[in-house]
Amino acid sequence: MQDLIGYSVEEMKVGQSASFAKTVTEADVALFAGVTGDLNPAHVNQAYAEQTDFKGRVAHGILTAGFISAVLGTKLPGPGSIYLSQTLRFLAPVRIGNTVVATVTVKEIFAKKRRVVLDTVCRIGETVVLEGEATVMAPSRR
Amino acid sequence: MQDLIGYSVEEMKVGQSASFAKTVTEADVALFAGVTGDLNPAHVNQAYAEQTDFKGRVAHGILTAGFISAVLGTKLPGPGSIYLSQTLRFLAPVRIGNTVVATVTVKEIFAKKRRVVLDTVCRIGETVVLEGEATVMAPSRR
Amino acid sequence: MQDLIGYSVEEMKVGQSASFAKTVTEADVALFAGVTGDLNPAHVNQAYAEQTDFKGRVAHGILTAGFISAVLGTKLPGPGSIYLSQTLRFLAPVRIGNTVVATVTVKEIFAKKRRVVLDTVCRIGETVVLEGEATVMAPSRR
Amino acid sequence: MQDLIGYSVEEMKVGQSASFAKTVTEADVALFAGVTGDLNPAHVNQAYAEQTDFKGRVAHGILTAGFISAVLGTKLPGPGSIYLSQTLRFLAPVRIGNTVVATVTVKEIFAKKRRVVLDTVCRIGETVVLEGEATVMAPSRR
Repeated sequence: MQDLIGYSVEEMKVGQSASFAKTVTEADVALFAGVTGDLNPAHVNQAYAEQTDFKGRVAHGILTAGFISAVLGTKLPGPGSIYLSQTLRFLAPVRIGNTVVATVTVKEIFAKKRRVVLDTVCRIGETVVLEGEATVMAPSRR
Repeated sequence: MQDLIGYSVEEMKVGQSASFAKTVTEADVALFAGVTGDLNPAHVNQAYAEQTDFKGRVAHGILTAGFISAVLGTKLPGPGSIYLSQTLRFLAPVRIGNTVVATVTVKEIFAKKRRVVLDTVCRIGETVVLEGEATVMAPSRR
Repeated sequence: MQDLIGYSVEEMKVGQSASFAKTVTEADVALFAGVTGDLNPAHVNQAYAEQTDFKGRVAHGILTAGFISAVLGTKLPGPGSIYLSQTLRFLAPVRIGNTVVATVTVKEIFAKKRRVVLDTVCRIGETVVLEGEATVMAPSRR
Repeated sequence: MQDLIGYSVEEMKVGQSASFAKTVTEADVALFAGVTGDLNPAHVNQAYAEQTDFKGRVAHGILTAGFISAVLGTKLPGPGSIYLSQTLRFLAPVRIGNTVVATVTVKEIFAKKRRVVLDTVCRIGETVVLEGEATVMAPSRR
C-alpha cells in the first residue's frame, strides 16, 4: 500500500503544482444531480435554462469543485492527505461539453502541524471559472 | 415558468432556514468518484481505507457540500439564484450509510445588490460534519 | 423530521396543483435502461430506432411516469404519502432533449380513508404526452 | 434488423406469458431518484425511512413498473411494439435487495387494430407487489 501514499509534507515545496482536466458531460450533470439532490432547473431543465441569463443549462458549481478535490486527493498531496477546508468563488458558468482544468499550487507549508495551504483554480481555456484556497493535512513519512 | 422562481430577495428574512436530507449510499460515492475523477483510495479502495485512521471508506467532502448546493438551488433561495461563493470546513467524516442533513440559514441580506449570505451546516444526528458560509445572488420580483 | 411531512389530507383542496419539470437526457435513458432492464432497441439502439415510425430513439414511457411520481412524492402530497395506484395513457413520444412538465391536480379527497385522487398529466410544451390518474394515501396531522 | 422484431400480433396467443427478474440494488434506487427527480425521503433518506411504517427505505413504485416495461419491450411482444397504456396497483413495498419477477400474460388480442391486452404482475417470491394491465400495439408481419 506504500505506493498509495502521496507527497508527504516533507516532500512538498511552495510553488509545486498539479492539475487534472475533465470534460463535463450531460451524464455528469445528470448523475451529480441525483447524487446530491440538486435538481435546480438551471442544471436539469433545458427549457427553463434557455430563459435565464446563462441561455442554457450549466453544470453545478460544486461539481467543478470536485475537480479540485480530485487533484488534492489523487495527485498533490494525494492519498493520505485529509481535506480540512476549501473556499470557492464561482466566477463563470461551466457548460455541458466544456473541458475544465483544475490546478492546485502549494502556497504555504506548516510542517509541524503537517498543514498545507494551496491555491486552487479551475479554468476553461484561459477563463477562470472557479478559484479559492484549500487547506489539507498532508501525510508524513516520519 | 414563473412558479420555478424561488424566494426573491424581497421575500427573504434573516433567520429564515431550509434543509435537505439524504443518505449517502455506496452508489453515490462511486458515481461521485466517476463524475469528478476523485478516485482517492480513501473513497474507492476499501482495503486501503481500512488501514487509515478512518478505518474504512469515507464519502468525498465535496459530495457533502453538494447537499448545501441542493438546498440553495431548490429551496432557499431556490431556482433563479446564482451561487457566488462558498466556504467549507470539513469537521468529521461522512461514512456510507450516514444520513446527512444540510441546513442553510439566512445571515445577511444586501437588498440593493440582491446578495444574500447564508450559514451552511451539514449534520449527522447532532454531529456537525461540515460548516461554512454561502453567498448567492437571489432573484428579484422587480 | 416533522418538516419532512408534506401536505396532510386535511390541508389538501380539490383543484390544488403542483408541477415538476426536467429535460430528458441521453444519460437518463441509458441509466433508466440499466436500472429497469428495459433494453428495447427503441430506447437504446439508434440505428434500429431511425428505421421505426418514431425516426429515432424515444424515452421509456415509464421514465416519464417517474416525473409524476416525483411530484407526488416530493410536492403534493409530498413526503409521508403512500402511492396506491396509477393509470397511464402514453399519447406521444418523448425524445432525448425534450423538457417534460409533470403536473398533478387534486380531483377527489376521501378524508376518512385519507385517500386522494389526482389527475396526472405530462406535457412537452402544449402537447400532452402522458395522462392518467393517481390514488395516494396522504399523511394526516391527527 | 429483422431479428429485432418481437412477436407479431399474428403470432401471439391468449395465455402466452413471459417474465423478467432483477434484484433491486441501492444503486438502482439512487439512479432512479436522479433520473426522475423523485427524491422522496422514503427512497433516499434512511434515517427518515426508519421512522415510517415501512421501517426503512423502499424502492420507487414506478421503478418496479419499469420491470413490466422491460418484459413488454424486450420479450412479449418485444421490439416493434408500442406501449399504449398501463394500470398499476402498488400492493406491497419493494426493499433494497429484493428480487422482483415481472410477468406479463396475454389476455385479449384485437388483431385488426393490432392491440393486445396483457395482465401484468410483479412478485417477490409469492407476494404480489404490483399488478395491473397493459395495452400495447404489437408489430405485424403483414
